[in-house]
Amino acid sequence: MKLYDYFRSSAAYRVRIALNLKGLEYEAVPVHLVKDGGQHLQSAYRAINPSALLPSLQDDGATVTQSLSIIEYLEETHPFMPLLPHGALDRARVRALAQMVACDIHPITNLRVLKYLTGTLGVSEDAKTAWYRHWVREGLAAIETQLAHAPETGRFCHGDTPTMADCCLVPQVFNALRFSVDMAAYPTVERIGAACSELPAFAAAHPSQQNDAE
Amino acid sequence: MKLYDYFRSSAAYRVRIALNLKGLEYEAVPVHLVKDGGQHLQSAYRAINPSALLPSLQDDGATVTQSLSIIEYLEETHPFMPLLPHGALDRARVRALAQMVACDIHPITNLRVLKYLTGTLGVSEDAKTAWYRHWVREGLAAIETQLAHAPETGRFCHGDTPTMADCCLVPQVFNALRFSVDMAAYPTVERIGAACSELPAFAAAHPSQQNDAE
Repeated sequence: MKLYDYFRSSAAYRVRIALNLKGLEYEAVPVHLVKDGGQHLQSAYRAINPSALLPSLQDDGATVTQSLSIIEYLEETHPFMPLLPHGALDRARVRALAQMVACDIHPITNLRVLKYLTGTLGVSEDAKTAWYRHWVREGLAAIETQLAHAPETGRFCHGDTPTMADCCLVPQVFNALRFSVDMAAYPTVERIGAACSELPAFAAAHPSQQNDAE
Repeated sequence: MKLYDYFRSSAAYRVRIALNLKGLEYEAVPVHLVKDGGQHLQSAYRAINPSALLPSLQDDGATVTQSLSIIEYLEETHPFMPLLPHGALDRARVRALAQMVACDIHPITNLRVLKYLTGTLGVSEDAKTAWYRHWVREGLAAIETQLAHAPETGRFCHGDTPTMADCCLVPQVFNALRFSVDMAAYPTVERIGAACSELPAFAAAHPSQQNDAE
């Protein structure tokens, strides 16, 4: 399998964790989001993924896009080391936690949106940082509430083995720390992030461990 | 089942379509996104959904949040009239198309983001509308490319029966038209939208047909 990847892409980071948790070998193909005006915007990559977003996974010649769709695909084709629990309600809880990152936080705070704010709208660097922190805090506060008050929460977001929810949460925590968001208000998120970082699958997926890291 | 709903919420509209396609009865509980400073922001609704976002589904006392998670839950608990195809790659394609709406367009253009732009950032109404159209156009262009060049595309996004992808696409088209986005550049999206609107399940889920419509 080939993963079109960028060390700092939060959505690619999710998929790297999932691949590692399942013990699947893959070749990382770096697509630089800044160099050459953004290699993801060039026609070579657009031919693979018309959204011009990372990641994309190629498996046996077929391309799968969108990080959550890729993780569901890996789950269906490689069911060992499941990233979703069994019961329908439990699965819904894990998917909802994943989407609280992938739909409610990350899309509003990713690079293309920040560039539109400072470029097209002429927003100041300070106002951009405030925007970033606002949406991260809103989102993490909701996740903290879901996690802190639920008997389903264990060592990880759902029970004592990592799931798709942890694959999404850890990259979001990494991003929050990059923008100096104070994590003290989200103790359960912080505790789970620390538990994840002890696992080799998460450690090996960390941006600093990628071949294209800068 | 109870659906916490708002006639104009795009994410709730997706779930209404899914419920109707599966022929499932539900009680709509309106949560007004504007009245009383936003009823979704009040503690009564936050106790149901800490994200303070619509929709939420209650089934037998349990709450499921996040529209795509709700649709997957309905698919697993009510597998008749499937909203996902069989093969893993086909399922990945449908999920990716759904996420191209639910992750790449809608989160950046929803009400709370537009309010931050005009309120906190003091962006003009014109610049807000330009923002809206920019992300909708980017997203629809990518979806058009995925749909127009794929043998899997049929009368609907994937084959000749509606899927989760159509549940997401139709509300996004509705929103695009509200903001006068010219749909001529997206002929496949437009054709599929028209095909969907002929089905009673889609027609009954339309914002204008809800009890709380204004």
